[in-house]
Amino acid sequence: MSRFFSEKYRALTPYTPGEQPKEMQYIKLNTNESPFPPSPRAVLAAAEAAKGLNLYSDPTCARLTRAVAEHLGAFEEEVLLTNGSDEILGFAFMAFCDETHPAVFADITYGFYEVFAELNRVPYRKIPLREDFSIRIEDYFDAKGTVFLANPNAPTGIALSPAEIEQILLRNPDNIVVVDEAYVDFGGESCVPLIRKYDNLLVTQTFSKSRSLAGGRLGFGVAFRALISDLNTLKYSTNPYNVNSMTLAAGLGTMEDGDYTAKNCRTVIENREYTTAKLRRMGFVTTDSKANFIFAMHPCLDGGRLYRTLKERGILVRHFDKDPIRQYNRITVGTREQMDALLSALQRILEEEA
Amino acid sequence: MSRFFSEKYRALTPYTPGEQPKEMQYIKLNTNESPFPPSPRAVLAAAEAAKGLNLYSDPTCARLTRAVAEHLGAFEEEVLLTNGSDEILGFAFMAFCDETHPAVFADITYGFYEVFAELNRVPYRKIPLREDFSIRIEDYFDAKGTVFLANPNAPTGIALSPAEIEQILLRNPDNIVVVDEAYVDFGGESCVPLIRKYDNLLVTQTFSKSRSLAGGRLGFGVAFRALISDLNTLKYSTNPYNVNSMTLAAGLGTMEDGDYTAKNCRTVIENREYTTAKLRRMGFVTTDSKANFIFAMHPCLDGGRLYRTLKERGILVRHFDKDPIRQYNRITVGTREQMDALLSALQRILEEEA
Repeated sequence: MSRFFSEKYRALTPYTPGEQPKEMQYIKLNTNESPFPPSPRAVLAAAEAAKGLNLYSDPTCARLTRAVAEHLGAFEEEVLLTNGSDEILGFAFMAFCDETHPAVFADITYGFYEVFAELNRVPYRKIPLREDFSIRIEDYFDAKGTVFLANPNAPTGIALSPAEIEQILLRNPDNIVVVDEAYVDFGGESCVPLIRKYDNLLVTQTFSKSRSLAGGRLGFGVAFRALISDLNTLKYSTNPYNVNSMTLAAGLGTMEDGDYTAKNCRTVIENREYTTAKLRRMGFVTTDSKANFIFAMHPCLDGGRLYRTLKERGILVRHFDKDPIRQYNRITVGTREQMDALLSALQRILEEEA
Repeated sequence: MSRFFSEKYRALTPYTPGEQPKEMQYIKLNTNESPFPPSPRAVLAAAEAAKGLNLYSDPTCARLTRAVAEHLGAFEEEVLLTNGSDEILGFAFMAFCDETHPAVFADITYGFYEVFAELNRVPYRKIPLREDFSIRIEDYFDAKGTVFLANPNAPTGIALSPAEIEQILLRNPDNIVVVDEAYVDFGGESCVPLIRKYDNLLVTQTFSKSRSLAGGRLGFGVAFRALISDLNTLKYSTNPYNVNSMTLAAGLGTMEDGDYTAKNCRTVIENREYTTAKLRRMGFVTTDSKANFIFAMHPCLDGGRLYRTLKERGILVRHFDKDPIRQYNRITVGTREQMDALLSALQRILEEEA
C-alpha cells in the first residue's frame, strides 16, 4: 500500500476470483464457466468486429440492447448492458445504497456483495440462511435497505420461486430489491416478467454462464425505466464505452442463436442431475441446485482436504474456507466426460480415505 | 430519475461522448479515433480468442502486462491494464482523492476529470490555462491536492516537456501527479521514464488512439509499484475480469506489431502538419498540437456555426460550446483524403461566408 492511498479504502479486502491456474491443465470445475464454446455465430461476429476496432464501440449499445429487450419481452429503455454483470451490480450498490439505505443480503451468497458494500462505504446487514441453506423470505420483509438476492443463490444453487420473490417485493415497496439471476437459465424461473409490476425491482443477468461468453464480459440489468435511467447516469459518469465492440457483436451472434444456448442449458441440467444422483449414491449430501454447479459434502471427508486432493489429481473445484460451508465444495457442471472423471476421482478418494 | 436514486448522485452530470451518428456516413473527425484499422496481428489474435470465450479472461492479464511492461522498460508490477484509460483514471480519482485531497486540473482539459470528481464526491479546483491555452506549470506547484494533467492536453493538443512535469513533481512531493498520456505517441514526450524517480507519479496511456483499438477498450497505468498495488485493490473490488479475452489478445497482437503502430503515428503526424499548414494559409488560428487532432478557429467564422455547417456537409468535428473555446473546433487528423475533403469544404465555406 502506498502512503497516498485514500483512508477510505485502506481496509478494503478485494474479491478473490476463482483460481485461473496456468502451470498445468486441470479439469476446471471451479468458476462456473460453460464447458461449451460460444455459438459459432458469436465467434464469427466477434472476428468481423475486430477489423473495425479503430472506431469506438457504440456507447448506447443500441443493436444488442434491442435484441436482449426483444428476447425478454421488454422495452429497450428497460435494459442496460454492462461489462459483465459485476458492473451492473456495482452500479446498483452505488445508485441504491447509502448511509440511510444499507445493503441487505444473505450471509452465504455471492461474495462480491460484501466487497461492493465496503467499496461504496455503505452499511450492510447479512441475514443468515436456514440450516439447510435455504432463504427464509420473511427475513427480507420490511428490509429497511436495498435487498440483494442471488437467485438461484451461490454457492448453494437453491432457488426461490418468482411468487416468493413477489412476496419480498410486496413487503418492500420503498426498498429496491435486486435479483441477481446469473444462474437462472439452468432451471430457475426468472423475475423479469415482474419488472412492469414493481418499480422497486432490478433483475440482473449475465452472458457468462448459459451463453458461454465469460471471457467477453457481458451482463445486463432489466428494470422499470426510471431505474435503468439512474444506472445509465452512473455508466456515463464512469465508462461510457463500457462494452467493447467485439463483445457487442458476440452478444448479438449469441442472441441470434438461441437454440444453441437452450441446447447447452439442457445438457448442463442433464449432467447436473446425472452427477448429483451418482454423488448421492456415494454418500454425498448435496443441495437441490438449479444452477450450473453442485454444492456437495461427504460426511466422511473434510471439505478443504477434498478440494486439495482433487487439485493434486488434476481436478479444480471451489472451496470456501468459512463457516458454515467449510465442509462443502462447489463443483461446476461440465461435460459428461468431465463429470465421469470427477466421479471416478471421488470414488477413489472415498476408497482411500473414508 | 427514480425515487430510489441515492441523494449522492442526483446532481451528477454524466460525460457526453462524441456523437456516434448512425443515420448517415460522415467523414468522422470528432472522436480522435485512428483512421487506420488495427494491426492484422491484433485482428487475427482477437478472432482466435473469440473461440474460447466460454472461459473467463485472465484477471491478472499476465501476458499483455508483461508485453506492455517490456515495451516501456518497466516491471510487470509497475503496470495495470484497464477497460480503457477511463477506468484507470477513475481508479486514480478513487484511490488518491478525498475530502482532504482535492483534485486539481486545468479548466480546459479532458471533460471526464470533472465528472470523476463529481462521481467520487471529492472537492476539485480548476486552474485556468493561459490565454494562449498553454499550462503555466507554476500554477501546479504545491497543489494541495492530486494533480491531473492531460499531456498533450485535450482539446488543445499542447504538450508540456518531461522537464516541466518534473518541476511539478518536485514541487509536489506529497501529492500524486497523474499524467494522462492518451495522445503522447503523436509527438509528445512520455513521462514513463520518471516513474522510478518519483513515487508520486502515475502515467496513464491508452490503446485507443495510436494503437487503433478504441473499440476494444484497453488502457493502462504505469507507476511506482505501491501505487499500482493500490489501484489493483480497487480493480479487484470493482471488476476483477475488467479486460475481456479478445481485447487482451488484440493488445498482444498490437504490441508484437510495433512497426505498424509507429508507421501510423508518423502518417498522422505528417497529415497533421500538412493540414495545419494549409489551415493557417486559409487564415485559421491553430494551437501547436502534438496530438492526433488540430484545434482551430477562424477569425471570420463562428465556431458553433462552422461545426454545424461541416456536419450538414458530411464532416463531423467536435465543438465544445463553452468559454473560452467556443470559437474553436477540434478536428481529428484522418487520412490524407479525409484531410483534403475537410480542407475543400472549409475553403468553400470561407468563400460563402467569410
